[in-house]
Amino acid sequence: MNLFDSIVKPTLLLDETTTRANIRRMANKASSANVAFRPHFKTHQSLEIGGWFREEGVTQITVSSLDMAEYFGHNGWDDITLAFSANPRQIAGLDRLAGRIRLGILVESLETIDLLESGLSNRLEVWLKIDAGAGRTGLAWDQPEFAWQVAQRVRHSQRLNLRGLLTHAGNSYSSSNPAEAARHFSVSKERVNLLRRELEARGAGPLQVSVGDTPGCSASSDFSQLDEIRPGNFVFFDAQQLKIGSCAFAEIAVALACPLVALHPERGEAIVYGGAIHLSKDTLEWQGDRIYGLVCPPAERGWAAPLVGAGVVRLSQEHGVLRLAPQDLANLRVGDLLCLIPAHSCLTAQAMGRYLSLDGHWIEMMRA
Amino acid sequence: MNLFDSIVKPTLLLDETTTRANIRRMANKASSANVAFRPHFKTHQSLEIGGWFREEGVTQITVSSLDMAEYFGHNGWDDITLAFSANPRQIAGLDRLAGRIRLGILVESLETIDLLESGLSNRLEVWLKIDAGAGRTGLAWDQPEFAWQVAQRVRHSQRLNLRGLLTHAGNSYSSSNPAEAARHFSVSKERVNLLRRELEARGAGPLQVSVGDTPGCSASSDFSQLDEIRPGNFVFFDAQQLKIGSCAFAEIAVALACPLVALHPERGEAIVYGGAIHLSKDTLEWQGDRIYGLVCPPAERGWAAPLVGAGVVRLSQEHGVLRLAPQDLANLRVGDLLCLIPAHSCLTAQAMGRYLSLDGHWIEMMRA
Repeated sequence: MNLFDSIVKPTLLLDETTTRANIRRMANKASSANVAFRPHFKTHQSLEIGGWFREEGVTQITVSSLDMAEYFGHNGWDDITLAFSANPRQIAGLDRLAGRIRLGILVESLETIDLLESGLSNRLEVWLKIDAGAGRTGLAWDQPEFAWQVAQRVRHSQRLNLRGLLTHAGNSYSSSNPAEAARHFSVSKERVNLLRRELEARGAGPLQVSVGDTPGCSASSDFSQLDEIRPGNFVFFDAQQLKIGSCAFAEIAVALACPLVALHPERGEAIVYGGAIHLSKDTLEWQGDRIYGLVCPPAERGWAAPLVGAGVVRLSQEHGVLRLAPQDLANLRVGDLLCLIPAHSCLTAQAMGRYLSLDGHWIEMMRA
Repeated sequence: MNLFDSIVKPTLLLDETTTRANIRRMANKASSANVAFRPHFKTHQSLEIGGWFREEGVTQITVSSLDMAEYFGHNGWDDITLAFSANPRQIAGLDRLAGRIRLGILVESLETIDLLESGLSNRLEVWLKIDAGAGRTGLAWDQPEFAWQVAQRVRHSQRLNLRGLLTHAGNSYSSSNPAEAARHFSVSKERVNLLRRELEARGAGPLQVSVGDTPGCSASSDFSQLDEIRPGNFVFFDAQQLKIGSCAFAEIAVALACPLVALHPERGEAIVYGGAIHLSKDTLEWQGDRIYGLVCPPAERGWAAPLVGAGVVRLSQEHGVLRLAPQDLANLRVGDLLCLIPAHSCLTAQAMGRYLSLDGHWIEMMRA
């Protein structure tokens, strides 16, 4: 039985060759630039895929939750940054894990540092979380006085080891081309380095700088003034990264295979079994429309190029509504499979919980 | 230790008293109107909560996937409608389950009927899936000629037992008040009944009519011309249903408790641990903004009324960005909990995978 014959319901296909090539390319880029490569494992959340990173020499990783830190920390990874502003309610769990591995966390407030200081018995590596303009969270890059207070509080702690400044230039996701993503990356890097110099001048000691977004790390060729990069999504890429120009279509490594259950040629649409609980409801702006993903026909090795003018235009819990051109609709039958390239592969992977490799084996990931 | 002290990460709280009252109210409403009550279990997906329905006399249920039909079908539920246009790739699974329980499915094409007919060895109950104006999928209510062809094909089948016409008036979700939801419900009901009379006049035999949306079933007091209702979301309700007026705030039965990890009073925002993978990325229009949910302080029995002017305004994988009024921000500290009322509770429940009852016990649900 071939791969596609075995698929009866929404299934997340993974192209191992492409995934490994994506890993190798970013590892080589970091290595050539002489910066540490600490990839974010929140995208794939899989021990098996983690092993592919290890084959490229990766020994330090980033995760986004304590659960994920424990999952990898209990399975051979002993240098993990939990790139999330420390949650005061999980100090006991952080402390336990810090007794086993080298664990880093983010801080951005004096209150959290005090809570950590009084709750920890083991040492934690600490990064100041810097908002370099993305506007999600972190210490403002242009308020060195407060950053200095926070740095001092960490430096005077018995349990916290100040590593440096960490930022996520999430605003790069709004880029419409690689040059723009590279500009976001460069601006963000300059800002964090300005703050680094300011803090070092005040005596904060040598501080490292860690940055992390896939659009920036893909588009930029200048990793100077950086100590570490932490991209995650690049392992699979997705429609959003394709739009930004972080990747070529051939570098996208996952697609959601969905059975076609109804055709509506009179309105140029078809219905697949595959909805919000499979693809997630993240969207991207694509050729003037807001869509949930691109639509590709299956092909011998995975999936072919996206159907022109096609898109996932509406999603309910289990249904996906696809817009398709008349000639494509005319060639489809109920029971056929279509492969959807997600807007955001991290959320699709999380929703699906495992991958089917194109060679037919299941790749497991962490389950909450 | 009280309930809130035990919560260290995003946790879906469930108020059992409210949930049971929601179930009882809809069961009584169906019973008074003398229509069958076949609630949709896709919202809660839990055997334990299913037991609460059984205590109200429910024996027939609706689900949205074969996996869910198997989960409930193997655990005591023997009359299940899989309210999804039959997926030709799962005919073998449908057939196996139909050998054990009374299983209903939806059809809307001749091709699917032919595939079912050649693939089944057991009998299936069949509903014609009717699009009464919602525009998702189904046979158009105003094209009786084609619906008649499909009905005839089912009637001539050896394995398919034609039950009637089924619709989901999903357009009721766009209502801005209960009267509008009731109008959508009424229009949809009239349309399906028009088609029923047309098909019965041609000799399709007595056909039942089954309808299913929570806004309509909550807002309408006229269940005449109906044989069955299939609402699902009413078991928990959510911010969207509150907005439509399907429920009062006190009838909302689930909320996502999230630890606060950062405060940004200078821009009127705070950050919680709780993001797209917990709440889902469904949104609603609320007082002129598009938000992912409402923000409530925890209270002795669950959560208090939403903070005025507050909302979940942005979500990334694990972060939620809350907009909060200055006086609320001034009262909050990192490590506090906030309870988020989701835009769409079905998707939040699916994302979270289990519930913490306010009495402190875990309520498990199906895991894919």
